[in-house]
Amino acid sequence: MSDPDETCGVNVAFAVVGSKWKPTILWLLGQGPRRFGALRREIGPVSEKVLAAQLRELQRDGVVSRREQPGFPLHVEYSLTEHGRALDAALAPLADWGDAHLEVLSGASADAS
Amino acid sequence: MSDPDETCGVNVAFAVVGSKWKPTILWLLGQGPRRFGALRREIGPVSEKVLAAQLRELQRDGVVSRREQPGFPLHVEYSLTEHGRALDAALAPLADWGDAHLEVLSGASADAS
Repeated sequence: MSDPDETCGVNVAFAVVGSKWKPTILWLLGQGPRRFGALRREIGPVSEKVLAAQLRELQRDGVVSRREQPGFPLHVEYSLTEHGRALDAALAPLADWGDAHLEVLSGASADAS
Repeated sequence: MSDPDETCGVNVAFAVVGSKWKPTILWLLGQGPRRFGALRREIGPVSEKVLAAQLRELQRDGVVSRREQPGFPLHVEYSLTEHGRALDAALAPLADWGDAHLEVLSGASADAS
């Protein structure tokens, strides 16, 4: 069984941002550059290995940039590229829909109780 | 390791529409109601079992409605609910970003060759 149409914009976007921690990483970097440690503390339950891998993928896709800051010890800062900021903005309506969906769900569970 | 913040709108939306064929199903139903067979033909490489399961999940999430049409043989028609149309609209900016990303990728591969 082959895959969904990889030229369909939504599928392309999901391939970039659809996996587990990426929406949260994007949302945090949308508020400003972060060091790795800060990102990890703010996200919470993500392992170092998984966070590093997802950041590498976001860099590969041109959405996040990585900048080494001079000095010792070495500090690395992650931030959104222009392309990344455009993605962050494109996710905003979806976030609003998700918030509305949460209300639909909580309304439904209130009716059921 | 626990899961991303399930109260974050984007994560909620991805939980509803983020799996394999759902963006394509939503995109097709956004163009109008479809019978199961027509959906399957238009999507192409999806199995009957997977398509039926994804439609059930979209119904459970209040995004798709299912209507049985009187007559023999029984016909069933799927369409977007109002909540589903709102999700379809919220995905449009992401689709545009995905189209732009495809150009970034094809530009990059042209440079590399």
